Amino acid sequence: MPELRQNLATKQWVIIATERAGRPQQFLEAYRPLTEEHPEHDPSCPFCPGNEEPENEIVRVPADAEWQVRVVSNKYPALRKEGERVRSFDGVYRRISGVGHHEVVIESPRHNLCPALDTPQHLSTTLQTLQSRCCELAQDPRIEHIICFQNHGEHAGTSVLHPHSQIIALPVVPYEVRMRAEEARRYFDDTGTCVFCQMLRDELQAAERIIAENASFVAFILYAALSPFHTWIVPRRHEASFLRASAAELADLGDILRRILRKLYCGLRDPDYNYIIRTAPLRDPGDEYLHWYLTVVPRVTRAAGFELGSGMFINTTLPERAAIFLRSVRDE
Amino acid sequence: MPELRQNLATKQWVIIATERAGRPQQFLEAYRPLTEEHPEHDPSCPFCPGNEEPENEIVRVPADAEWQVRVVSNKYPALRKEGERVRSFDGVYRRISGVGHHEVVIESPRHNLCPALDTPQHLSTTLQTLQSRCCELAQDPRIEHIICFQNHGEHAGTSVLHPHSQIIALPVVPYEVRMRAEEARRYFDDTGTCVFCQMLRDELQAAERIIAENASFVAFILYAALSPFHTWIVPRRHEASFLRASAAELADLGDILRRILRKLYCGLRDPDYNYIIRTAPLRDPGDEYLHWYLTVVPRVTRAAGFELGSGMFINTTLPERAAIFLRSVRDE
Repeated sequence: MPELRQNLATKQWVIIATERAGRPQQFLEAYRPLTEEHPEHDPSCPFCPGNEEPENEIVRVPADAEWQVRVVSNKYPALRKEGERVRSFDGVYRRISGVGHHEVVIESPRHNLCPALDTPQHLSTTLQTLQSRCCELAQDPRIEHIICFQNHGEHAGTSVLHPHSQIIALPVVPYEVRMRAEEARRYFDDTGTCVFCQMLRDELQAAERIIAENASFVAFILYAALSPFHTWIVPRRHEASFLRASAAELADLGDILRRILRKLYCGLRDPDYNYIIRTAPLRDPGDEYLHWYLTVVPRVTRAAGFELGSGMFINTTLPERAAIFLRSVRDE
Repeated sequence: MPELRQNLATKQWVIIATERAGRPQQFLEAYRPLTEEHPEHDPSCPFCPGNEEPENEIVRVPADAEWQVRVVSNKYPALRKEGERVRSFDGVYRRISGVGHHEVVIESPRHNLCPALDTPQHLSTTLQTLQSRCCELAQDPRIEHIICFQNHGEHAGTSVLHPHSQIIALPVVPYEVRMRAEEARRYFDDTGTCVFCQMLRDELQAAERIIAENASFVAFILYAALSPFHTWIVPRRHEASFLRASAAELADLGDILRRILRKLYCGLRDPDYNYIIRTAPLRDPGDEYLHWYLTVVPRVTRAAGFELGSGMFINTTLPERAAIFLRSVRDE
């Protein structure tokens, strides 16, 4: 029998309809070249060493030697750095000038490095770089909200193989982000508890969907996972903002993120995925009731008319079974 | 300069970033077989005449001759007809038994009929069939909300070429549907006006994004289109529920839907698309402030990490330019 499940924090419903499909392994991609079967260096890749454009460079790490991580302005930015934030709300026409920041974090000089095969230390360097860029961008008074994300593979929306993540700093708080904050605030007002802390406690107690843990983080498949293997990596310490994660936490995040990506890589043969850091809005941070986390979404299924028309998803894999599968995949 | 635009009704923001891309024609698919280049009859297709399974049939039109439209139970239903709606809200675990209906409307006996090339009369028959099924399903007291949609092509989430649409009747109102109703109610409380009627008036006055009109409907590219060619077909008459559209309106909807699909077919070479009928929740219908409509979403772009993490979209085509393009494509 299928069932509907609701995510306590986001209020989203999902239909878990396992009779429509089979076991987690069904999502193994048909044979295609793994990331690292591509060349280590591609002369035509704009992110490869030798093709740096100094005028676009924002920062390089380390600063005084061959770079391991570089941050550049996106050459085709969704938003422009220059200009004033001008709002015009005229009847049905509500618009804001497209000011903001769109940066690319090139995660390695190696063209074909699959993030899943990276070292935890190097992943942590990338995460520290993301955080320090966010802290810098938060100083811009035009910015209300920042999204950090990685797209891996074509189904996840990228055509560039070279490992990179992106930062988009917005002059507005997205409606969905507002609604989630609203629901979290309501839960806090009702119960005096952060809803994310509550979910973490309940998941640890149930122990059915957890796939990895370390000193600072717990990674679990969501009870109401919108798609197979939809995972949250949640810090144990209550903290609304990714910008205030400690250095020790970023080191631990590198460790656990790499373990999750490696489980996906080995268990599902280098699937396309997105990961996203969900952090509080900058100017309305909800310190008591928001809780930052990282979400990983392997792109093994596709949204169709039902999903577009309802905002609900149909997940054909039981989350508890997906968790058993991923727990069993070695991540060392 | 990019700009952010907000949809007055849904409150969703979109980034219109036209510098990232070019003209509407860029979305022309590379050569691939058009729908009607496939065979007229496929012996292995479960929807083709000869493969009917009487036990799955719900209705056929006409009833007493060779069928033109058939409604069947989905063989792999997301929800089950049988059983009670049981809710259990136990701490973090919120679930409802997966009862509901999942029906398939087979739109033609012809395997390779592209809906864009169908006749307006036949499309109206399909829409009437959808409506009469919705009215029937609304009698089921376990059902709270109904979604009707069509997936055309692989990027839109279907692998079955034979033209068909689907009906999913849910035992719950999806969160996104609730939020939209909430915003519409707030607009009505503030202004005494249906926000959809207001958008329709403003679009007719601006006349910049309209792509087709007839006696009962106006079709326009949204001011805050989430993707290129994202279109709403809105009834001129204020009415919350698709279930109460008149016979004349359904005839006019067949006409205008066919013109829009034909423009997409001719202008973008049979692109993959979804269309969805957005109607009021059954038990909380918001008669004064909700307004049903049909939305068409050509799947020419892909959601990536930014979209998953913000609920916002980046649209690289200026809606006014997409409208000029589609207006210029013949639809006869």
